[in-house]
Amino acid sequence: MHAVLVAAVEAGGGTVVDLDEADAIIWADPAAGAELRRHVEAAPRATWIQLPYAGIETMVDQLDHDHLWTCGKGVYADACAEWMFAALLTAFRNIPAYVRAERWPEQQGRNLLGARITLLGAGGLAEAFLRLAEPWGCTTTVVRRSGKPLPGAARTVRTPDRFDAVADADAVIVCLSLTPETTGIVDAELLAAMPDDAWLLNVGRGPHVVNDDLLAALDAGTIGGAVLDVTDPEPLPDGHPLWGFDNVVITPHVGNTPEMGLPLLATRVEANVRRWIAGDELLGPVDVDAGY
Amino acid sequence: MHAVLVAAVEAGGGTVVDLDEADAIIWADPAAGAELRRHVEAAPRATWIQLPYAGIETMVDQLDHDHLWTCGKGVYADACAEWMFAALLTAFRNIPAYVRAERWPEQQGRNLLGARITLLGAGGLAEAFLRLAEPWGCTTTVVRRSGKPLPGAARTVRTPDRFDAVADADAVIVCLSLTPETTGIVDAELLAAMPDDAWLLNVGRGPHVVNDDLLAALDAGTIGGAVLDVTDPEPLPDGHPLWGFDNVVITPHVGNTPEMGLPLLATRVEANVRRWIAGDELLGPVDVDAGY
Repeated sequence: MHAVLVAAVEAGGGTVVDLDEADAIIWADPAAGAELRRHVEAAPRATWIQLPYAGIETMVDQLDHDHLWTCGKGVYADACAEWMFAALLTAFRNIPAYVRAERWPEQQGRNLLGARITLLGAGGLAEAFLRLAEPWGCTTTVVRRSGKPLPGAARTVRTPDRFDAVADADAVIVCLSLTPETTGIVDAELLAAMPDDAWLLNVGRGPHVVNDDLLAALDAGTIGGAVLDVTDPEPLPDGHPLWGFDNVVITPHVGNTPEMGLPLLATRVEANVRRWIAGDELLGPVDVDAGY
Repeated sequence: MHAVLVAAVEAGGGTVVDLDEADAIIWADPAAGAELRRHVEAAPRATWIQLPYAGIETMVDQLDHDHLWTCGKGVYADACAEWMFAALLTAFRNIPAYVRAERWPEQQGRNLLGARITLLGAGGLAEAFLRLAEPWGCTTTVVRRSGKPLPGAARTVRTPDRFDAVADADAVIVCLSLTPETTGIVDAELLAAMPDDAWLLNVGRGPHVVNDDLLAALDAGTIGGAVLDVTDPEPLPDGHPLWGFDNVVITPHVGNTPEMGLPLLATRVEANVRRWIAGDELLGPVDVDAGY
């Protein structure tokens, strides 16, 4: 990751220097968020800090108003939208049963073509999904804080109306940032509002879903199943009850895999370095107060 | 099926009558192809015969030049194109391993976005696939008898050039009609021409693939895997070696399921009855000499 991002900085016209000379910091290690503050303080000239990944919740308590912060927001959107299609088709086309089959199985499945899909979240992932979904004739509902219509969605509603927005859904997809407001948004009440055969997909963050409420809904058969790319905790421990359902598929945080994601992040870093040098607006600015 | 098609005939403005009075026959039972000739001969007034399904190879030896024959060609195309996406994303996004996982698995996968896809066949399925694939930025190659460019494909080549057309493919999709020319088209030579990590998908008919050659390629690891919606024979018998591979997913002829397909066929029958009465051209005409 380090080598690729060094190359990206240089391709964008920058020079990699020691912290005490740096005008900007490209933070390459998302797992070392706790180290971030120390490095920022060791770079008194730095005014711009580029964070990796789109979700920055592990670093959010180290943000400040003294710097311009950017992150990988939007970079991974297309790959994550692709995951959303993979998960929807896995669910609707009965793929788990066919993967497990050791003899000719029963014909089952429903169409994604023309299905009713509700998205919780209206960011880059939702936009990318709607772009790919355009030829599929789905009826899409987007739930977002502002309620401002998202282009490509059949309807957009405000967060308090989320129960109504999932009531006729074939699938509900969580593609939100994790904030105090959105933590636990998929709870018993939301799951109960979904049709009994609707699938839940999570490509946001694990804590968006209240595990105990999801397990209760799965036990009671009041949802169709779940495809989860993120869990709480992550990785999901051995023996966790979510491993025990035939209608739950857990993918190991591969909305984008590291292999897919690094070239995408490198392209973003290169573009931002070029923009920074030219004095242009940077891509993926973080709203420090909103925390994403 | 019978009741739904009777309703479709009536909705199209027709009346269901005995064979000896019939101007046309709507054949509702694809499994009873052997009975077809007898019924045609019992309907001396009939000039048009509508067959069910898109692939009519079980009835092809009963066609003649005395009648106008139509079939379900194109009716199921969108549902089958949806299956193609389900199969591609199952393969590329490592879904079989995740379905089987009982603990946090390794991150693996590649993108369908921007992938190189080769289609054997340029009929309704290929057209429907290309329509859905448009926003995915795939590089698509179509192999067809005539070599006539198919709109939406990056390139179209003639059947003898098929080895070249699969040489850089991430996936090869069989979406052909079954004819003497296309039987066994996926043989050792074609499989050897594919990259070692390329996936084979078959949504045409089982006999397009030479099973022994596919098994040999899977054993040798010279293809990435296979997703097969059709097999030879079908259903695939218990204990068949194709059940034994982790990188083979067999779906039970569900390009469209009977549930998905019947309303689509009914819509076609209704439209054709209306056209027949109005003297308009019918949808899905069979080329009796070509046999599809």
